Amino acid sequence: MDAESRRAWAYLSRVTEPPNPLLAQLVSSVGVVEAAARVRRRDLENDRLKRATAARFDIDCADADLEILDRMGGRLVTAEHEEWPHLAFAGFHTLNHEKRPQGHPPLVLWVVGPLELWDVAERSASIVGTRAITAYGDYVAADLAAGLVERDVAVVSGGAYGVDGAVHRATLAADGRTVAVLAAGIDVPYPAGHSALLHRIGRHGLVVTEYPPGMRPTRRQFLTRNRLVAALGRATVVVEAGVRSGAANTASWAKALGRPVGAVPGPITSSASVGCHDLLADRAKVITRAADVVELVGQVGELAPDVARPATGLDDLTDEELTVYEALPGRGKRAVQEIAVAAGLPVTEVLGPLTMLEVRGLVTQQEGSWKLAKH
Amino acid sequence: MDAESRRAWAYLSRVTEPPNPLLAQLVSSVGVVEAAARVRRRDLENDRLKRATAARFDIDCADADLEILDRMGGRLVTAEHEEWPHLAFAGFHTLNHEKRPQGHPPLVLWVVGPLELWDVAERSASIVGTRAITAYGDYVAADLAAGLVERDVAVVSGGAYGVDGAVHRATLAADGRTVAVLAAGIDVPYPAGHSALLHRIGRHGLVVTEYPPGMRPTRRQFLTRNRLVAALGRATVVVEAGVRSGAANTASWAKALGRPVGAVPGPITSSASVGCHDLLADRAKVITRAADVVELVGQVGELAPDVARPATGLDDLTDEELTVYEALPGRGKRAVQEIAVAAGLPVTEVLGPLTMLEVRGLVTQQEGSWKLAKH
Repeated sequence: MDAESRRAWAYLSRVTEPPNPLLAQLVSSVGVVEAAARVRRRDLENDRLKRATAARFDIDCADADLEILDRMGGRLVTAEHEEWPHLAFAGFHTLNHEKRPQGHPPLVLWVVGPLELWDVAERSASIVGTRAITAYGDYVAADLAAGLVERDVAVVSGGAYGVDGAVHRATLAADGRTVAVLAAGIDVPYPAGHSALLHRIGRHGLVVTEYPPGMRPTRRQFLTRNRLVAALGRATVVVEAGVRSGAANTASWAKALGRPVGAVPGPITSSASVGCHDLLADRAKVITRAADVVELVGQVGELAPDVARPATGLDDLTDEELTVYEALPGRGKRAVQEIAVAAGLPVTEVLGPLTMLEVRGLVTQQEGSWKLAKH
Repeated sequence: MDAESRRAWAYLSRVTEPPNPLLAQLVSSVGVVEAAARVRRRDLENDRLKRATAARFDIDCADADLEILDRMGGRLVTAEHEEWPHLAFAGFHTLNHEKRPQGHPPLVLWVVGPLELWDVAERSASIVGTRAITAYGDYVAADLAAGLVERDVAVVSGGAYGVDGAVHRATLAADGRTVAVLAAGIDVPYPAGHSALLHRIGRHGLVVTEYPPGMRPTRRQFLTRNRLVAALGRATVVVEAGVRSGAANTASWAKALGRPVGAVPGPITSSASVGCHDLLADRAKVITRAADVVELVGQVGELAPDVARPATGLDDLTDEELTVYEALPGRGKRAVQEIAVAAGLPVTEVLGPLTMLEVRGLVTQQEGSWKLAKH
């Protein structure tokens, strides 16, 4: 896009707390440059929008912000760009905005990384969970992520400690596609301990945020950010979550957006699985392997294959055949009359089943008496 | 009951493989003594019943069987006795007997123990699971059983190794009421390693079977027995189960009988929890504590209490209050104008929330500037 529009997007990205649907409306009706100009000179018909921009309208660090973005090799992505994941954000328009005031698409996304956002969002799962991860959760998160990479599913998370970090790391380790959605500015490594990880994600995957450079994350921003984590995954899966967790908030966004929600069961003795069991009690799908997630992601014809069940030759016996079979001694042989007594069936009804069992190779006959076949 | 009827019940208990609805019909139409007499002399109009009794009609060890029962201090219980749990067995009459040929009430129960069967079945849960129990399952089974005893719920199981045994033992240890439903004769300690346990259950709880003395258990009898385990519990809960397990069979009986089914989640890395996760995927209730089972058992006004959730003072803030709260620095103070900028709100809309936050004791004011309250 041209420099002027770019400056306008950057300016508007900071002028209100995102998301602001009034600002989005103004942009779509008069264009981004004119919208920015009107906000700057307080020339706004809508009083609520006027108030919402009153505090920051005269703060313009668009140039500085864009310079930071350029230095990071990043880009601005908006609904005007091919990369914009329109489908992923479509659900926001149908939300009840009384109940979910934050339930709007972002206006601008600050993006760093080699992947295309719309492409990633086509086939993706959001895997989230507690920061207080256990060894079990760490194993499961990494295992699921690796399994999703095998099945060409991109993995979206929040870049936090715990489950998020385990998921991002495992996806990178498997050369998969991973997206970290931040609650801070693109240049603010948060948590600090993940600055190297976020850097790697920016080099091989995508780091995305709707907050302008320099913004520190706040509790409110985390909750607002969670809606984007949910929106960018075709399904959301919680690996481990305590009684109070942001993961539950992300899951509720996914549910509101009509996306399937899954949860990984764990030991009921583990406080890190309480949130997952709450979700399962609330009809989240049971996730025990990556194939279950792929099924939720919902590509046609990708139902999870049944787990292989060991079969025994007795499974498809009729009731009578089973009765007769059970009537044979574990060792040694029996005459038909004895079998009939043991089975509680008349001789006439024992011969048929015995023949069937012989056909199945389960019993053998010797001089008119029967025995179990050796296996 | 009189000796003649008693002998008749004992005789009929062995003459066919239970349950046999035709025999039950005959008994209810002509009485047990006459029914036994007709079976003995092959005087039966119904051909199927005639065939079903052909093999054993001339085997009469009723006296010996009753002597064994008397020696054990046991009793015969039938629909003619006050102790009969009519409600528990009512569901069988509504089953699809094409699909479930075993789906009939028992004709006779051989019972040892001081409790009354109908009384126990009034408020009971069946807790079942794999014989290949893990340390986790062992802990959970014992913990659930102890919790149910506290809530005056009787615990029904199958007397087997693994989950069954853990449940019976924990219930006895807590001086609770437990019922073991056997797939063998009342005098056949099966499994052998549980003969002491079964003896204790017979002294303090109930040991129940529809099979006459001396009968060894067979695979078919286990499956038939499972229907009684399901019927005698107001709900059935599976603690641990592998991919192929009798527990799943018991759960399917409970479901068919219209009883709630619950399953305990476990590590997805544990093969002993695969069956539970299958049940949860099939809409079984998530069981994480005894209170969940009590809720399934379904006594009025016994919904499981919500798990206590730690609360923070921020939970019930409005969106604006939270925004303003977040706009305050972690340490140090800020003027209203600075807060407005940080919050992205006009000054006029910051003062209201600030006052509310002060009322809530979350922020304090000093010489016109604001700071977070110390806690």
